[in-house]
Amino acid sequence: MANSYDSGRLDLPFVGISTFGKRPYQPDWNALEADVAILGAPFDAGTQWRAGARFGPRGVREASTLFSFGHAGAYDHEDDVTYLPASVRIVDMGDADIIHTDTEGSHANIEAGVRAALRAGALPVVIGGDHSVNIPCIRAFDDQGDIHILQIDAHLDFVDERHGVRHGHGNPMRRAAEQPYVTGLTQVGIRNVSSTAREGYADARAMGSDIISVRQARELGTQALLARIPVGARIYITLDIDAFCPSIAPGTGTPSHGGFLYYEVLELLQGVAQGDEIVGIDLVEVAPDYDPTGSTTVLAAQVLLNLLGFVFHARGAE
Amino acid sequence: MANSYDSGRLDLPFVGISTFGKRPYQPDWNALEADVAILGAPFDAGTQWRAGARFGPRGVREASTLFSFGHAGAYDHEDDVTYLPASVRIVDMGDADIIHTDTEGSHANIEAGVRAALRAGALPVVIGGDHSVNIPCIRAFDDQGDIHILQIDAHLDFVDERHGVRHGHGNPMRRAAEQPYVTGLTQVGIRNVSSTAREGYADARAMGSDIISVRQARELGTQALLARIPVGARIYITLDIDAFCPSIAPGTGTPSHGGFLYYEVLELLQGVAQGDEIVGIDLVEVAPDYDPTGSTTVLAAQVLLNLLGFVFHARGAE
Amino acid sequence: MANSYDSGRLDLPFVGISTFGKRPYQPDWNALEADVAILGAPFDAGTQWRAGARFGPRGVREASTLFSFGHAGAYDHEDDVTYLPASVRIVDMGDADIIHTDTEGSHANIEAGVRAALRAGALPVVIGGDHSVNIPCIRAFDDQGDIHILQIDAHLDFVDERHGVRHGHGNPMRRAAEQPYVTGLTQVGIRNVSSTAREGYADARAMGSDIISVRQARELGTQALLARIPVGARIYITLDIDAFCPSIAPGTGTPSHGGFLYYEVLELLQGVAQGDEIVGIDLVEVAPDYDPTGSTTVLAAQVLLNLLGFVFHARGAE
Amino acid sequence: MANSYDSGRLDLPFVGISTFGKRPYQPDWNALEADVAILGAPFDAGTQWRAGARFGPRGVREASTLFSFGHAGAYDHEDDVTYLPASVRIVDMGDADIIHTDTEGSHANIEAGVRAALRAGALPVVIGGDHSVNIPCIRAFDDQGDIHILQIDAHLDFVDERHGVRHGHGNPMRRAAEQPYVTGLTQVGIRNVSSTAREGYADARAMGSDIISVRQARELGTQALLARIPVGARIYITLDIDAFCPSIAPGTGTPSHGGFLYYEVLELLQGVAQGDEIVGIDLVEVAPDYDPTGSTTVLAAQVLLNLLGFVFHARGAE
Amino acid sequence: MANSYDSGRLDLPFVGISTFGKRPYQPDWNALEADVAILGAPFDAGTQWRAGARFGPRGVREASTLFSFGHAGAYDHEDDVTYLPASVRIVDMGDADIIHTDTEGSHANIEAGVRAALRAGALPVVIGGDHSVNIPCIRAFDDQGDIHILQIDAHLDFVDERHGVRHGHGNPMRRAAEQPYVTGLTQVGIRNVSSTAREGYADARAMGSDIISVRQARELGTQALLARIPVGARIYITLDIDAFCPSIAPGTGTPSHGGFLYYEVLELLQGVAQGDEIVGIDLVEVAPDYDPTGSTTVLAAQVLLNLLGFVFHARGAE
Amino acid sequence: MANSYDSGRLDLPFVGISTFGKRPYQPDWNALEADVAILGAPFDAGTQWRAGARFGPRGVREASTLFSFGHAGAYDHEDDVTYLPASVRIVDMGDADIIHTDTEGSHANIEAGVRAALRAGALPVVIGGDHSVNIPCIRAFDDQGDIHILQIDAHLDFVDERHGVRHGHGNPMRRAAEQPYVTGLTQVGIRNVSSTAREGYADARAMGSDIISVRQARELGTQALLARIPVGARIYITLDIDAFCPSIAPGTGTPSHGGFLYYEVLELLQGVAQGDEIVGIDLVEVAPDYDPTGSTTVLAAQVLLNLLGFVFHARGAE
Repeated sequence: MANSYDSGRLDLPFVGISTFGKRPYQPDWNALEADVAILGAPFDAGTQWRAGARFGPRGVREASTLFSFGHAGAYDHEDDVTYLPASVRIVDMGDADIIHTDTEGSHANIEAGVRAALRAGALPVVIGGDHSVNIPCIRAFDDQGDIHILQIDAHLDFVDERHGVRHGHGNPMRRAAEQPYVTGLTQVGIRNVSSTAREGYADARAMGSDIISVRQARELGTQALLARIPVGARIYITLDIDAFCPSIAPGTGTPSHGGFLYYEVLELLQGVAQGDEIVGIDLVEVAPDYDPTGSTTVLAAQVLLNLLGFVFHARGAE
Repeated sequence: MANSYDSGRLDLPFVGISTFGKRPYQPDWNALEADVAILGAPFDAGTQWRAGARFGPRGVREASTLFSFGHAGAYDHEDDVTYLPASVRIVDMGDADIIHTDTEGSHANIEAGVRAALRAGALPVVIGGDHSVNIPCIRAFDDQGDIHILQIDAHLDFVDERHGVRHGHGNPMRRAAEQPYVTGLTQVGIRNVSSTAREGYADARAMGSDIISVRQARELGTQALLARIPVGARIYITLDIDAFCPSIAPGTGTPSHGGFLYYEVLELLQGVAQGDEIVGIDLVEVAPDYDPTGSTTVLAAQVLLNLLGFVFHARGAE
Repeated sequence: MANSYDSGRLDLPFVGISTFGKRPYQPDWNALEADVAILGAPFDAGTQWRAGARFGPRGVREASTLFSFGHAGAYDHEDDVTYLPASVRIVDMGDADIIHTDTEGSHANIEAGVRAALRAGALPVVIGGDHSVNIPCIRAFDDQGDIHILQIDAHLDFVDERHGVRHGHGNPMRRAAEQPYVTGLTQVGIRNVSSTAREGYADARAMGSDIISVRQARELGTQALLARIPVGARIYITLDIDAFCPSIAPGTGTPSHGGFLYYEVLELLQGVAQGDEIVGIDLVEVAPDYDPTGSTTVLAAQVLLNLLGFVFHARGAE
Repeated sequence: MANSYDSGRLDLPFVGISTFGKRPYQPDWNALEADVAILGAPFDAGTQWRAGARFGPRGVREASTLFSFGHAGAYDHEDDVTYLPASVRIVDMGDADIIHTDTEGSHANIEAGVRAALRAGALPVVIGGDHSVNIPCIRAFDDQGDIHILQIDAHLDFVDERHGVRHGHGNPMRRAAEQPYVTGLTQVGIRNVSSTAREGYADARAMGSDIISVRQARELGTQALLARIPVGARIYITLDIDAFCPSIAPGTGTPSHGGFLYYEVLELLQGVAQGDEIVGIDLVEVAPDYDPTGSTTVLAAQVLLNLLGFVFHARGAE
Repeated sequence: MANSYDSGRLDLPFVGISTFGKRPYQPDWNALEADVAILGAPFDAGTQWRAGARFGPRGVREASTLFSFGHAGAYDHEDDVTYLPASVRIVDMGDADIIHTDTEGSHANIEAGVRAALRAGALPVVIGGDHSVNIPCIRAFDDQGDIHILQIDAHLDFVDERHGVRHGHGNPMRRAAEQPYVTGLTQVGIRNVSSTAREGYADARAMGSDIISVRQARELGTQALLARIPVGARIYITLDIDAFCPSIAPGTGTPSHGGFLYYEVLELLQGVAQGDEIVGIDLVEVAPDYDPTGSTTVLAAQVLLNLLGFVFHARGAE
Repeated sequence: MANSYDSGRLDLPFVGISTFGKRPYQPDWNALEADVAILGAPFDAGTQWRAGARFGPRGVREASTLFSFGHAGAYDHEDDVTYLPASVRIVDMGDADIIHTDTEGSHANIEAGVRAALRAGALPVVIGGDHSVNIPCIRAFDDQGDIHILQIDAHLDFVDERHGVRHGHGNPMRRAAEQPYVTGLTQVGIRNVSSTAREGYADARAMGSDIISVRQARELGTQALLARIPVGARIYITLDIDAFCPSIAPGTGTPSHGGFLYYEVLELLQGVAQGDEIVGIDLVEVAPDYDPTGSTTVLAAQVLLNLLGFVFHARGAE
């Protein structure tokens, strides 16, 4: 296990091409050899307030290089663990092809990317893009067995249809709940007014959702919150960056005050990674153009890298 | 009770003219028919550090449209209440006329607007402008009976006079305390160095103020804090956005670290709305030009809309 | 002819609701009584680089208030003319309804707005939105007689179809040229690499286009440039803000260096307004979130207000 | 004549306290010993659109340090001259005291500062603040003999009175023209709609003004433009930064497109410095908070330092 | 004890030259007469991600003027104490001379400044610059007796050597620990991945470090945390602004989520000032160009001024 | 010759990994097969005002994707040429390894990269980084035969030594002129005060420089300007982005007003590419953090891509 700076280059974080974590780029999706496959999904035509999540994949990739000091793994002194040792193969697939003015075409390309990752046996990690990109992600799991969805988000995103719109960023959890292989949803962080009206909440509960606000989650504490999620399940995590407080995640389309702080989400993710099998991840709604200090992209990268560390530590990576 | 999107237009948040909450605009102040009258007071010549609160009314109005999804009311799943049903008539009066270089003339125009709202039987809600705009607001209540003032702010604003200045943004609470119909003040969130010196605190207490810092408020908890405010009183709420932590409210003239987070203020406001009669509101010191991410204007709009929801829910709106 | 500040209010530019030029807002499109009808078209899903033009209408409206000092008309000392006297009735229609993820639905709503303006006998002025909003604008002229299009733009926007896309912001001039009532196009400012490839230029010329770059326009001079436009024609002007140099118009989706400076476009517009009949206008691709100093929105407002002044001065307004 | 870096410190531009040009600070105005006295006038309550010029003095001072490389004078290879040799004593007086909400009090303090500079035999150079600070500057010249005013500005600033306002930033040139010792004004750069209406232009001409737009100035050329200014006169220069194009001077309250580029103003100033006696200077309306790139403050510092170089070169400094 | 506004000038925060706290500037380091000596150390070539800390000293100085209202001391109503009475002499030394491309030369100049402050019997307070400036600060204490270092920081900064680098911003705590007069380190706030790898943590502990994360510090509480620091020791405090949460301190080179909030650090500092002797302070890594709202520089100034207040209150200042 | 969008992917500009022009990335410098080799040189410790050019390579790479529409070459309608056909092989080498605090080590790594490109027979194109990175670039040509340097820049950069500094961003042209294989320099755009003093200009001329200011270049016109450059020479072009006007290139360390506009530089480059052999290129001082609108990085990418087009068109690429 060698640090890269021991062999030739110091490779400071600000140096080099911005793939995710400076990991290898593999544009040939039929040749993926990876434990984790990163896919950008730069689609933002599903937004109802600010767009800009199309630059999310590039922004998160660049921020992820801040955590690349050339070490062979990421040492955490609190856990006394070195996460993500060199044995965990992370590969950057690049982006799904997006076709402007064409929601269905763009979604289909995202779906194809997730299917390619699954086919290669890799954990698909999709960086949005707005939350509508979750729709094709979930579709791609139709031959993977049952999954439970853990959504961390400010908004319920459970609108069925309005003015003909069924695939915008207010619809994905409804679309997911309709899938026979989605056995349930845990929706955490939900708060304030959104595009989902009262009836959407009733529908969600009727279709198997457990809805928990930020204040409810805080009152429960991490352990009791984890107890609300099925143990040992195959979990798909969809993380909307606006689940976080705008103080640390301003760079998003529809910010909502009263969100989670860093460790609240991190500890939830660590707990889920320890107790369940994580089968897919998307992180959406990062809009770098509303993030003048870089706080949001750094947060997204930091959370993703930690989550991947937790997942593979639970899988016994060394 | 119909959702607006059921009849013709989807009216996404980013669509349309920016009146407060996309509510009707009524420039003829003699023709107001409203439960709530929104008045902009874009005056900022009273500031001692950064100006820019003159754009506060426009900024808060635009941000308020983010919460306009065309629903007939704002459903809150935590309270299981739909706030602000269509029966609550909110009208935007536009702005008071401001005369540059003329503090007294500008203040007089603000006072006239508040008097017009009161005359129409509406709850006046003034969006500043700097905190000096509270001075004419309080003046307009001289024929309304006794009021108690709840100030939520980082600064005491209790300077009597210095270099002849009596109507700047460091003076309003002193001016208010001098009014015979102001029976007391509760000043919450006060912290750090400000333009009020030691003697100002002594004067405030002598004139009936109860001064509570952020840390003291936290130690008390919401219920004990509410117990410090007269029950059943007629309350005028003046909310300086710098009461909040700069992490969520950077867009203000004189930011002060260590401020309140979102739910701390929200729960205080909800409690007061339940236990007292709210007779007037101003929200001041929002300076959009120092708010590159929009966090501050969104916060201001979110707090105001929630507060109005609490007030009219307490009044039995359906 | 009275200045508004002579009767009651000073109404400084920063005061008041942001309709275009602080002119009356008329949401009932069947009740339009106007010489000019301003319509916002906040659609930006047709973009190939940065989105954000959905906030163009609001941004241009707010910037337009800078030019509202309460005078009865806009005096220009160089021309010794007071443009836009009170007799010219400008009305703000608000925005066309936009449906996220639905390009055709959104375009149809824009088309309906332009048709309403034409039906009322008003000059339609559409503020985009991305350049794809020109497509429904031109469609709305199908019963208005022949028109010639003057496009001022960095990009030719003459892509026929690619990956199925026919109504993105790279397609509008091709779509326009296909209309039987479009007798020709003058395309000014075209420069640098864009989404239109070599064959697009050939197609454009074959379909009646006259293509002129910035450098070619400068070499011609305003008079010779005007001579390239049919005299006495019914002209529809489509102005993409990226025709201007990024130095003054950075707030746009696809900036292109080497663009026009202010007076170059202004003098062209003044000449056309004098020599032709202007029957419709759109100004597109203003994206305020990329305009930190406000330069672009101020430019857009300034150009539009001047152009309207030229048009009605030519029509003999007093 | 020694370079400062030859004796101990390199003193790179980014190092050290930000007085103007890193020159000595003398807060005791009775002890001034200087050829040039820099006075900040951070007053901006006279503005009609964006405020923020109160931070102009600090912004220009900090930008001025960019031109401080420790050389003994500023070598210009085009002129082959070393301007501002060590013999020219420039002193920073600090700022005039500003009293919020009190225009007259603030103006009086500015006037006192300019009188102190004149009493010390120094050339007063006032950095605004908004253009209303010119009013007390001109007042301070009431015992100095006749002066001619060269105004370089986008706006005429010739409003007499409106709603009682006589000392805002739209009034200074009218106030100046009223002084018996002001023998005339040359107003260069004037363009577009402003707070001065048609009658203001007529009044200005009647009171001795020569009004020249940017386009007229360009058509004349520098030499013919200089010929419009009295030769050998005692000239007071008032430079509003919005005379420049917003492309290089966005950081100002009321930007106006179509302004001057750098060398157009520089060559005018050089010509005036050679042909006339410069007796006072103010540079106003720099608002750093609207200047995200620093372009405007750098421009202001660069123009001021060059102008001072031209003045003292004409006076024979070595 | 007089307030400055009682004698002539109001001196609002935005008025005047930006020395630290508007205190006197003394460039002659042999003539220092002060209790506190402020030294800027604008060096940032030691950074591994974003530079820009070279503008830290200027940024913190300007922000510090926000807390200058002309009062004779800073009254804190929570403690009922007036901190920093006029008797505490704070002097601004200006900046150490920085030589670009020369780390050792720049560090030597910083060391010379700290030695000058110590020679004058003043408490040296160094404003960075990146954290490498701590290296010469600690060197300057080689003749001052034993010291214990309290580091408040996100990063351990304990890299020994890599690619020859020993004096970058990842090395200072290792360099400090090597000094015989450094008896131990308490490192608080350490979290997440950084340039220090696993072995660095082991080395630190072996060399006398006590490493405490943010979560560990929170679990301990202030009193138990204070108990981890030697009582009555001579303490040197090095405060890296990235110890704070990016929500309030985004303006720094290497932000790290999960940091401290305001009162957590303030109460730690107050406790240390009460129980120990503070012999030196540096505050580093403030990069104003990444701080668009000014939150970070205000935080730095607010913390420094409070810390100085605590120190001299403990010393009995009146 | 096929467009990429004809075979599978539309690949809009905002989609995909940001290598230069979305060209292949080749980190193995021994395996370069290219006509053009792009090398990032993210070193900025040589700066005397703002740093930040370390992010120049990433910024220019990302901006370069705006010009990637999937066409097989870049069609220019003014020249009626399709530049950069698929036959021109452009490869991105990634970045030279940078060692913080170590100027010489970093420079050596840059030199190694340029030597690798030259060894592979590719045209080296280095993206800085500050202008000091030109020093190792020129060193790498020591075995390539005589070269003439065309510098386009605001600053002469001809300081020999000061306080021991010989390899900062004020020194490169002096270092170049000292090389025996550098037969002369043409320095275009030089203006205003800089770190080079009077004697530096004399030295430059003595060592073979031809110094031309912006105004002198304009007066000459492109043809006469080209006549000042040796015909048929082997030219190394070093382009400091601050040669351009800050209106289009604010994102740089030491902006200087009065710079070149877009076509002035483009036409000079086109002329040189036609009349001379271009053997090396560097483009330096792009600092994206000071470029809030993206204007500067877009300019840099646009100029580089055009220049490469001109070079290979002159070489007969088809």
